[in-house]
Amino acid sequence: MAEHVTLCEVGPRDGLQIAKTRMTTEAKLRWIRALAASGLKEIEVGSFVPPRVIPQMADTQAVTEDAVTIPGLTVVALAPNLRGAQGAYAAGAHRVSVPVSVSEGHSRANLNRTPAEQVAEVARLVEWVRAQERPMQVVAGASTAFGCSIDGTVSTAAVVALSEGLAEAGVDGLMLCDTVGYGHPAQIKEVVRATRAAVGDVLWGLHLHDTCGLGLANALAGVEEGIRVFDACQAGLGGCPYAPGASGNIVMEDLVFMLESMGFHTGVDLAKLLEARAVLHAGLPEEPMHSQVAKAGIPRTFHPVTLPAAA
Amino acid sequence: MAEHVTLCEVGPRDGLQIAKTRMTTEAKLRWIRALAASGLKEIEVGSFVPPRVIPQMADTQAVTEDAVTIPGLTVVALAPNLRGAQGAYAAGAHRVSVPVSVSEGHSRANLNRTPAEQVAEVARLVEWVRAQERPMQVVAGASTAFGCSIDGTVSTAAVVALSEGLAEAGVDGLMLCDTVGYGHPAQIKEVVRATRAAVGDVLWGLHLHDTCGLGLANALAGVEEGIRVFDACQAGLGGCPYAPGASGNIVMEDLVFMLESMGFHTGVDLAKLLEARAVLHAGLPEEPMHSQVAKAGIPRTFHPVTLPAAA
Repeated sequence: MAEHVTLCEVGPRDGLQIAKTRMTTEAKLRWIRALAASGLKEIEVGSFVPPRVIPQMADTQAVTEDAVTIPGLTVVALAPNLRGAQGAYAAGAHRVSVPVSVSEGHSRANLNRTPAEQVAEVARLVEWVRAQERPMQVVAGASTAFGCSIDGTVSTAAVVALSEGLAEAGVDGLMLCDTVGYGHPAQIKEVVRATRAAVGDVLWGLHLHDTCGLGLANALAGVEEGIRVFDACQAGLGGCPYAPGASGNIVMEDLVFMLESMGFHTGVDLAKLLEARAVLHAGLPEEPMHSQVAKAGIPRTFHPVTLPAAA
Repeated sequence: MAEHVTLCEVGPRDGLQIAKTRMTTEAKLRWIRALAASGLKEIEVGSFVPPRVIPQMADTQAVTEDAVTIPGLTVVALAPNLRGAQGAYAAGAHRVSVPVSVSEGHSRANLNRTPAEQVAEVARLVEWVRAQERPMQVVAGASTAFGCSIDGTVSTAAVVALSEGLAEAGVDGLMLCDTVGYGHPAQIKEVVRATRAAVGDVLWGLHLHDTCGLGLANALAGVEEGIRVFDACQAGLGGCPYAPGASGNIVMEDLVFMLESMGFHTGVDLAKLLEARAVLHAGLPEEPMHSQVAKAGIPRTFHPVTLPAAA
């Protein structure tokens, strides 16, 4: 039986935050529904941050409230602090994703806190979430885990130390994020191995960018190290407003093509996923859209993985 | 000590053959010299085919005759048959690269012969080359080894059978070519393993295209299977005139970045390689140029592999 790989579409959050034009709430909702219709079961729909910081995210509450009505969809919202997590909870999010930078420079630029201060905030946030009536997952995103455009090289030891702090803070899961896309396959393997040795199953997955063209090679390295959870973004939109030079997330379309070709089950219908590009384009007509498989068309040799129907 | 990976730049041949505009002989020579100056030690400079078939290659004799004067450079020329190999030999080429399709459909479209007929042609060609005074390497390129846009799926058994025929024909080396870019990492590993089991060190390397975005992931899969020879192309130009949908070769710049980041020695100075893009662009201004690392700039965390000076 084919192994399953879980894909979280982060386009409506990471893909839009530095877009030059604004996507309306209605256009975001159409796009999210098209993504969900392709079989994606997890979507990060926005950030609970002050609108003056990232205007593209001003409607995150409304987007979250609508997205949670889509059957079977796990709705993720980013929150940089307890206040944001409270907003995510109130809007009905199933999971809150909290960024914590490994590097001091990115932490100060992105969060105006040191990494240690942000770990303490995560602990407070987890405590608050656990005290609520409805369960909500808390996942930390370890930003700049493979290098930082401000501080340069990030050591594996620093990633491990931060990961241990986050595990102690009680997060459900941890994503290792190549925020600026400086990582390479050998480094991915080393950092994944070391982090898993330190925190075990608290390590969930990888969040990769394609800055230097190694995005899918890095994803392959992760798969080979046993990673079965990836963030990715339709059309490879995105970047980080506080990480100069960072380009888009890895392209969801090409990632699905790679994984399904290799015999992993993603649950995503690649043809339907490609159709969702038109919905994205209609809502954000000026943004450049990537994907080699979209450009070339699905090869005639492609056979997606199907699972036997439940007995 | 770092392991070495040999890179052959195929841009002046594979990268130009479907370019919409013509590159002058002088512009080609400037580009080849800029590529060699970046540290590339092997360049495929053209094809010995009738000019009416591929007009871009009409000056291959003149280009070869000039390129062989560059110190330390291995000059490769493609030849589809004995007559082409005789031209390559007369022009002073150090190596002739002979395409042999695994799939019947691509073989007929590209060579107007069956695969078996082309293997027989390779045997005649090898015999002729071995009888000459000056040594010239003969390397076969097994086209459509990972799928064909005409015939569809290509079996590993078919690749192995063709490879055995080519080894018997006496070629010095064999490149497995993902001509249309349909391959995926698990398939790369399987086909490399099976081919090496059949022909041993006659298997030299991989020639990959980035049609579906998996180019560098496929290269990584090859590296992990012990492959240490790759074709690639500056700016990811190229394709195949008889393979609808095929897009460019894997991007040399991004491949060098990946390999050097991982600790492999390529001998290529990435900064100088990026400078050569301007020379290419000046000679072929209308052609789109790819490379994520060129777009983003070399990350500050990048440290190329250096070898200790010889004692």
